[in-house]
Amino acid sequence: MSPTKMAIREKAFKIIRGIFKKHGASEIDTPVFELKETLTSKYGEDSKLIYDLKDQGGELLSLRYDLTVPFARYVAQRGLSSIKRFHIAKVYRRDTPQMNKGRFREFYQCDFDIAGDYSVMLPDADLLAVIIDILSSIGVGNFIVKLNHRKFLDAMISLAGCEKRKFKAICSSIDKLDKESWEDVRDELINMKGLTTEMCDKLEKFVQYKGAPWDMLNRLKSEQVFVGHEEGEKTIKEMETLFTYLEAMNVLDKISFDFSLARGLDYYTGVIYEAVLTDTDRVGSISGGGRYDGLIGMFSGKNIPSVGGSIGIERIFNILEEKAKKEGSVRATETQILVTSMGKNLAPKRMEACAALWKEGFKAETLYVENPRTDKTFSYAFDNGIPLILIIGEDEIKNGMYKLKSLNEKKEYEFKVEDLIP
Amino acid sequence: MSPTKMAIREKAFKIIRGIFKKHGASEIDTPVFELKETLTSKYGEDSKLIYDLKDQGGELLSLRYDLTVPFARYVAQRGLSSIKRFHIAKVYRRDTPQMNKGRFREFYQCDFDIAGDYSVMLPDADLLAVIIDILSSIGVGNFIVKLNHRKFLDAMISLAGCEKRKFKAICSSIDKLDKESWEDVRDELINMKGLTTEMCDKLEKFVQYKGAPWDMLNRLKSEQVFVGHEEGEKTIKEMETLFTYLEAMNVLDKISFDFSLARGLDYYTGVIYEAVLTDTDRVGSISGGGRYDGLIGMFSGKNIPSVGGSIGIERIFNILEEKAKKEGSVRATETQILVTSMGKNLAPKRMEACAALWKEGFKAETLYVENPRTDKTFSYAFDNGIPLILIIGEDEIKNGMYKLKSLNEKKEYEFKVEDLIP
Repeated sequence: MSPTKMAIREKAFKIIRGIFKKHGASEIDTPVFELKETLTSKYGEDSKLIYDLKDQGGELLSLRYDLTVPFARYVAQRGLSSIKRFHIAKVYRRDTPQMNKGRFREFYQCDFDIAGDYSVMLPDADLLAVIIDILSSIGVGNFIVKLNHRKFLDAMISLAGCEKRKFKAICSSIDKLDKESWEDVRDELINMKGLTTEMCDKLEKFVQYKGAPWDMLNRLKSEQVFVGHEEGEKTIKEMETLFTYLEAMNVLDKISFDFSLARGLDYYTGVIYEAVLTDTDRVGSISGGGRYDGLIGMFSGKNIPSVGGSIGIERIFNILEEKAKKEGSVRATETQILVTSMGKNLAPKRMEACAALWKEGFKAETLYVENPRTDKTFSYAFDNGIPLILIIGEDEIKNGMYKLKSLNEKKEYEFKVEDLIP
Repeated sequence: MSPTKMAIREKAFKIIRGIFKKHGASEIDTPVFELKETLTSKYGEDSKLIYDLKDQGGELLSLRYDLTVPFARYVAQRGLSSIKRFHIAKVYRRDTPQMNKGRFREFYQCDFDIAGDYSVMLPDADLLAVIIDILSSIGVGNFIVKLNHRKFLDAMISLAGCEKRKFKAICSSIDKLDKESWEDVRDELINMKGLTTEMCDKLEKFVQYKGAPWDMLNRLKSEQVFVGHEEGEKTIKEMETLFTYLEAMNVLDKISFDFSLARGLDYYTGVIYEAVLTDTDRVGSISGGGRYDGLIGMFSGKNIPSVGGSIGIERIFNILEEKAKKEGSVRATETQILVTSMGKNLAPKRMEACAALWKEGFKAETLYVENPRTDKTFSYAFDNGIPLILIIGEDEIKNGMYKLKSLNEKKEYEFKVEDLIP
């Protein structure tokens, strides 16, 4: 990872960390390796992508595959009853890297989760506010957050007359609707998943509910979609509560209520969401998450309701890097002043000046050359985007005056030694 | 890693990262795994502590053991001719953890290195200034930086009449002088390493050079210790240059010139240093490093002179954690204002207030409870060290006034809704 890429990352992490903290989250860290058994049977088919450590004696270990399972293990092991935490760290997958799409074998995840037994939709609303605040602040362009609820999907599938055991299979087809036409998905549902045309006709009506939150909710009510279906009616009430909260926090305009959102459902028990960029269809999801009330209980036997989301930070890095490349404005370092000298053997004087600047909090450096050449000094400043050059010469020392050249303004200032600190 | 520990770490990293940047360093990142062959035969006996990944197809990989070898591989592979970089990341060792001494199987290192063909001692002086700035700023108590030069050790061993091939064996004995008496070390040199008493008598004189830099250098000169020994005389000149630079940067008072410093010498070709705390002998070295001009060439065939050091950050964390425990002042979160309500169904009002505070950059949160109880609110604020509570009640909404309670000052302020942002 090159210094300019790191500089972009650090800037993004700073924004993200700041927003997590603004919402009162604490930060935790877990080891890069977990016991192999902790990860076993948590990821379905993707388990083959887990990196195992060699058996060199001791416990059998694997590199973490995501940050959610280690979080659940952490909460269960420490017997916590509630925590609002974030975690920014790398995860590992034995995947074929696709650099241009932001997929690597080692990559960062930024996760935010709220575990604890709380009032309906309060943590869920906060999670969505955090995600929206981050995506708005980080400069990736326009986006929307697609929102759905696991219970709506359950209700939809039962009201369409489908068998419960086909839930996963049906969802995985429906979830393709952001890329494929209804006709293709319908063919798949009939030919591959064994649904009847009648079932499909009913499902088709459901997946068309997609749009502004209150509008959709009002349509669901006026069209009496869930009347008589207890879970469906209850979930409508829950969504009303959620939308009220999101409106209070002024983020509801980023939400699209979307019945066709049916993402990776193994954990999820409530709200599910996925954020997508709206100016490009090249990137896919840049954040996803939802409520998973059962996961922590898999480790401790004691369920702790939880909701959380993950920022697809590598994809965001890619966008930020491309943007920076276009603007041509990324610096690998933050040096403000390059200290140089004209005349022989002034290295100690340059160091004195640097030390004085450092003491006042300025970022300053000097070339590691006893007698730096003027052209090399200027090209170093230019190449590294350093805006100011402080020049120390024999005359300057005699007169007690320093020269400060500004490269951007092409100006020169003179000032006294004792006023070195501007 | 618990939230309070993470908060201490984050604070330390911020200081360290700030100082690296103040000196114009850029940040790089390398993958957590290297090709197994990259690490092979770099760590001598300690190679057995390297974690290997299981062979699941593809390249044979190992977890990084330190940050220096990956740095050398990085510079060589990218064909860089110079770089001043820092790297803060975890390294992995199959060691028996000693928690109380700050040794773990997974731990952070903070490395700073300057690679490039530069004037004598200029990068070396900057490295030492960086290390001293960090150790002074981070609050670990008093420390000194022991300094020596590989060439002095070479000269000492040759002037004592010892065989060159015993260099490593002799150094490893001498390096124990910070813990053992000269008599014990002498016994080891005679009985285990096969030195004569005459050799030992000569060595004894050398290892007594230990103290203030200029004093020691003047003694070496007036006592004509290296007169006629070309490398020795040249190294005295180099040390004069280094001390001049360190004095110019006002850090020479932290340096102890110490002929008995003979630490892990496989890489080192010039200056070597080690920082130790002076108020306690419980911790050992908290930073070490030196010049290693040959390492990068092991990967590319092209030598690039380099100097660098590593901060023993886990030991420093331990000290900071103990200190924080005594002072009882660590917060896991940074929340400034806890927003609460008195009266029914005011959750949306609380969220409005939070959103307004977030927008202005305040760190604010509200309990995830529809109607929070006053005692729970206050104990949450107290437990989490939140200094201010904003109270919204029906009266407050009617009057357009909010109440802000300060827990530390035990004061209460009233202000208008439109002045919510103080």
